[in-house]
Amino acid sequence: MSAYHPLNETKAIEIARNLEGIFQPQAQLACREIGDGNLNLVFHITDTSSSRSIIMKQALPYAKVVGESWPLTLDRARIESEALMLQGSLAPGLVPDVYLYDPELALTVMEDLSDHVIMRQGLMNGTRYPLFAGHISTFLAQTLFFTSDLGRNQQEKKLLVRSFTNPELCKITEDLIFDDPYRDAETNSFEETIRDEAQALWNDEELHLEVALLREKFLTRAQALLHGDLHTGSIFITPESTKVIDPEFAYFGPMGFDIGAVLANLLLNFAAREGWDKSEAERERYRAYLLDTVTDIWTQFQDKFLALWEEHGVDRLANTAPGYKENYMQRLLQDTIGYAGCKMVRRIVGLAHVADIDKLQDASAREQAQRLALRIGKSLIKLNRDADSIDQLIVAVHAASAAAKA
Amino acid sequence: MSAYHPLNETKAIEIARNLEGIFQPQAQLACREIGDGNLNLVFHITDTSSSRSIIMKQALPYAKVVGESWPLTLDRARIESEALMLQGSLAPGLVPDVYLYDPELALTVMEDLSDHVIMRQGLMNGTRYPLFAGHISTFLAQTLFFTSDLGRNQQEKKLLVRSFTNPELCKITEDLIFDDPYRDAETNSFEETIRDEAQALWNDEELHLEVALLREKFLTRAQALLHGDLHTGSIFITPESTKVIDPEFAYFGPMGFDIGAVLANLLLNFAAREGWDKSEAERERYRAYLLDTVTDIWTQFQDKFLALWEEHGVDRLANTAPGYKENYMQRLLQDTIGYAGCKMVRRIVGLAHVADIDKLQDASAREQAQRLALRIGKSLIKLNRDADSIDQLIVAVHAASAAAKA
Repeated sequence: MSAYHPLNETKAIEIARNLEGIFQPQAQLACREIGDGNLNLVFHITDTSSSRSIIMKQALPYAKVVGESWPLTLDRARIESEALMLQGSLAPGLVPDVYLYDPELALTVMEDLSDHVIMRQGLMNGTRYPLFAGHISTFLAQTLFFTSDLGRNQQEKKLLVRSFTNPELCKITEDLIFDDPYRDAETNSFEETIRDEAQALWNDEELHLEVALLREKFLTRAQALLHGDLHTGSIFITPESTKVIDPEFAYFGPMGFDIGAVLANLLLNFAAREGWDKSEAERERYRAYLLDTVTDIWTQFQDKFLALWEEHGVDRLANTAPGYKENYMQRLLQDTIGYAGCKMVRRIVGLAHVADIDKLQDASAREQAQRLALRIGKSLIKLNRDADSIDQLIVAVHAASAAAKA
Repeated sequence: MSAYHPLNETKAIEIARNLEGIFQPQAQLACREIGDGNLNLVFHITDTSSSRSIIMKQALPYAKVVGESWPLTLDRARIESEALMLQGSLAPGLVPDVYLYDPELALTVMEDLSDHVIMRQGLMNGTRYPLFAGHISTFLAQTLFFTSDLGRNQQEKKLLVRSFTNPELCKITEDLIFDDPYRDAETNSFEETIRDEAQALWNDEELHLEVALLREKFLTRAQALLHGDLHTGSIFITPESTKVIDPEFAYFGPMGFDIGAVLANLLLNFAAREGWDKSEAERERYRAYLLDTVTDIWTQFQDKFLALWEEHGVDRLANTAPGYKENYMQRLLQDTIGYAGCKMVRRIVGLAHVADIDKLQDASAREQAQRLALRIGKSLIKLNRDADSIDQLIVAVHAASAAAKA
């Protein structure tokens, strides 16, 4: 007896026309469905008589990945819209504005960002985003601090944890990131040329221990409200603007999982440069830019997070206990490095890949990129519990690059 | 528009008479309210024509402690009854049977345990409970393992976490155990004779760091469904039987908090023996019994927990990653020791004390017990992150006892 039904373009226009305060009564509305149809319908609705446009995103009651289809809760539309609104209030301007959420239709109406590009594509094109480290570190610091026990009333936070309970989407992460790549799983997907690398993952006991520990934290540590899927495909960008989208995996987990996701996707692009730059010099310059961005993100995140803590910390003992902040930030860095490594590994041998590498036309460049990404990913996972500086991550990347060339 | 109203003895009998399958139609029911009136009404209802009896526990919409009164959610009655039923299914015979839960009246009808005594009183009397370590280690292993991500479907577990969201009662713990004793808080309560000890707690920076870390885990780590208040006043006992009662503080937290609570209360009794035993020899024998029980509880818990893991572990990577189980159990021991220390300290300088010590008539024996309990508690808190064997806890207790005598 649910009123849910998937929309088509005509119905989407009808709904758009009835939204208050969005379009003029005389608007000439045109609609195009621009989603990939795997998880959601995405309608782009424009008033051709003005420049006004919106996005309407409707969750589908199933997920399709690589031919497979399975049922998936519509509740993720609620989680996504609530996460967007909360993130928007904490990090204004860094997520799309939400105009409406309709629970019956699992529908979110939001700001159109067509003037932005997907960051992954921007990086593949070799574009630089000098404001990105500033923007994303603000997004991370604001959303993570103010949803944690450090920055929010601790009883309110528990109710938020309850509201962002997200078992189905968490399970996707638990399987695809923290299990399947480390065994000969049917869901895995990799080219035969790197079967040796996949097998090495399945047999690396040191790695398994670290991944088990990181998996445990993902399962149990309700530290802050995460975006939950913060790769460069979830970021709309221009050189001036950054917008984080698609938080349907949002739940309360370890902060380092979000920060690590951003760093991992910069490093996946780093590994893929062989195929994207016209010259070696250009490649080295872009790689240096990526690594500088990695360092900047962590450093600026840390500064902003500590400044928020200093000014808005609500936990008396956490505010005052000598050594606690240092201890906290070190563990956060360790988690960030560990999760960055996991996020890299899964994109090479797991179900879902990244275009940065998959779109490399040259098979040998592609294989080289895959091997380098795995080498970096594994070394970050193994480094995680020993790390106490972001420089160690950079050193590990350089070491992996040098070893890959040798 | 709620149907809730506090019962009286007449109404309680009326409800009892209408319960299906409990009393015979011709039962002669007598009722006595036996609660302390601070948080709950507790009705003891007996059929004087048979030996049949039950307990009806009704939550009151407020809490009273030491003269103060504040509103408190009735939802705790739901949490308590659901926790009892879940624990009863996981650890049969180790909690009272629940016959009925009425959400409107916040009322739980359960097994009468009048033939048992409160364990705290039993220990004060010097009674030995040779089966207790076996019983409580089974209770802990079964309830903690099977509500954790190691022993339960991980998506189901997330729904349980949501259902056992318990902000109001968690706040009591967060304040009274993990904050107030470490500052000059109005809620603190201690005798003037040990003001030096209280002040030392407020200024001990090493201690503050450890307590802040343990507090953080209490706030964020949804490891398993805890009883949440597992002191010896929450245990009904005979030499043959152990029943864990009153899980209204139940929520998903760090396992070590429950295990530590049990050990702490044995050690508080250890510290209080000066006043309870007739001779020094008797005292030393009872203290040895208490310490043996502490060791037995941990050792048996560990064996049982690992056996459950071996047989019923659902997390592939946690089951197979070499070194993970050892790492897990070591962290669990460390948490146990740290929380045991916190639980001891709060009972000496915090709001709520224990009868083992408060009921000592001789002021000097009482002071001695308080100082010894604090010495043990502090040393356990400082030991926690370095511990890798339960023997270290025992050594710390002996060292504190020796230092207290010096």
